[in-house]
Amino acid sequence: MNKNKPLILVVNDDGIDSQGINFLKKIMYQIGDVYVIAPDSNRSAYSHSMTLNDSISIKQLKKNVNEFSCSGTPVDCVKLALNKILPRTPDLCVSGINHGSNQSINGLYSGTLHAAMEANIHGVPAISFSHLSYDDIINFTPLESFIYNISSKVLVDNTEGVTLNINFPDVPYKDIKGAKVCFTGQGLWKEKFELIKKDKYEKHFMIGGEFKSNTQIINTDNWALTNNFVSIVPVSLYPHLSVNLDKLKYLEDVF
Amino acid sequence: MNKNKPLILVVNDDGIDSQGINFLKKIMYQIGDVYVIAPDSNRSAYSHSMTLNDSISIKQLKKNVNEFSCSGTPVDCVKLALNKILPRTPDLCVSGINHGSNQSINGLYSGTLHAAMEANIHGVPAISFSHLSYDDIINFTPLESFIYNISSKVLVDNTEGVTLNINFPDVPYKDIKGAKVCFTGQGLWKEKFELIKKDKYEKHFMIGGEFKSNTQIINTDNWALTNNFVSIVPVSLYPHLSVNLDKLKYLEDVF
Repeated sequence: MNKNKPLILVVNDDGIDSQGINFLKKIMYQIGDVYVIAPDSNRSAYSHSMTLNDSISIKQLKKNVNEFSCSGTPVDCVKLALNKILPRTPDLCVSGINHGSNQSINGLYSGTLHAAMEANIHGVPAISFSHLSYDDIINFTPLESFIYNISSKVLVDNTEGVTLNINFPDVPYKDIKGAKVCFTGQGLWKEKFELIKKDKYEKHFMIGGEFKSNTQIINTDNWALTNNFVSIVPVSLYPHLSVNLDKLKYLEDVF
Repeated sequence: MNKNKPLILVVNDDGIDSQGINFLKKIMYQIGDVYVIAPDSNRSAYSHSMTLNDSISIKQLKKNVNEFSCSGTPVDCVKLALNKILPRTPDLCVSGINHGSNQSINGLYSGTLHAAMEANIHGVPAISFSHLSYDDIINFTPLESFIYNISSKVLVDNTEGVTLNINFPDVPYKDIKGAKVCFTGQGLWKEKFELIKKDKYEKHFMIGGEFKSNTQIINTDNWALTNNFVSIVPVSLYPHLSVNLDKLKYLEDVF
């Protein structure tokens, strides 16, 4: 461990074997000392959940290599990393690269984004990377220098109090027009539930659906991605400043 | 079903048998037509997670009574309710009453708050109720009229685009000074991991810890609750307005 090198925590929600985290960790090994702690299998859509009613196991994958698989949620991985695995608070946490969109409302469900946010709660500059392709194998290679550069930048600048939610459009690299710092655009999932079993007392469903978003509003991630930009959304842990409190003050009188 | 009566969805994360949801549903039965859909056991700290890799089962508890237990997460309960159980979009969603604090950063982990937020994504006015006591049995009785009144108010006013995160201080009713509309105060959990098993390849931990918060800043839920007020925090689905985008615009140039 080199004391002058930055210490970087790498996490994700797709699991330790996914292509995205393996690509990301290789870039981070070029920047600093790296610890990888990731779920032992897919934990997509685990959001900010943590394990309270069960134990969590952690396993070092290879002797003398700081890579661990964990039975818990993405947020559990970060909590264990900070408390039990890393030698000190890391200088940066990167999460991903997620296979699938975390633009718009998807960020709320995302274990990738929320693992980064958990590190941010503890004062660690944090970036969540996602790619709009849901394929198991994605051509990440052209994105390497952008990921290297923005991670190095955040390491120096310490974008305190916000987690960067970065999404890559699913287009050939040559068609990407640049990056846009933007807001979270509006969207929702139109769910479709498939009835897969029905007995006297119970019905069993699988969730599926289609993502609908407003792509018309400039300065949103929906707009940026639709127009072939990389979207960079700063996500605050304390979202309250957007709300006009005075408008709701009258509710105090209900008591 | 009376067409003129409001339709109310009642959810929680502590599970269908908890005292909190049973108290809450009784108040709602006085206001409108009620559907209760809640997890079949405790799902505390499930945040905004949903079930993608497994089926979700749903069970009506008694013939002709609109109360259902669900094998999924609190957010799954809401998605199923809106898509498969309720006759139309409800006029209000109330979640809780949670046994334990959802003030400050706790809201991020909370299945109670996020179930309400999921309804809010679909345009439903939503309130999350939590009590700072973690006891299984809490004296909710004196809070009935406040819960009735604020729910009726939100039904009429439709606080669109925000979910109300309401927390009750754990003090005798006579000591509650009133209600405060406020921001999410800063806080974090100082985790303590207990090693419960260790073998050659794996370590098994249980998460515990202590909540630390800044109670000095007026207009935060931490301050309000410490000073014996009920806290009412409006939580937006789109927290971006609090971030100064211009300050981070330079990151676009990294690409």
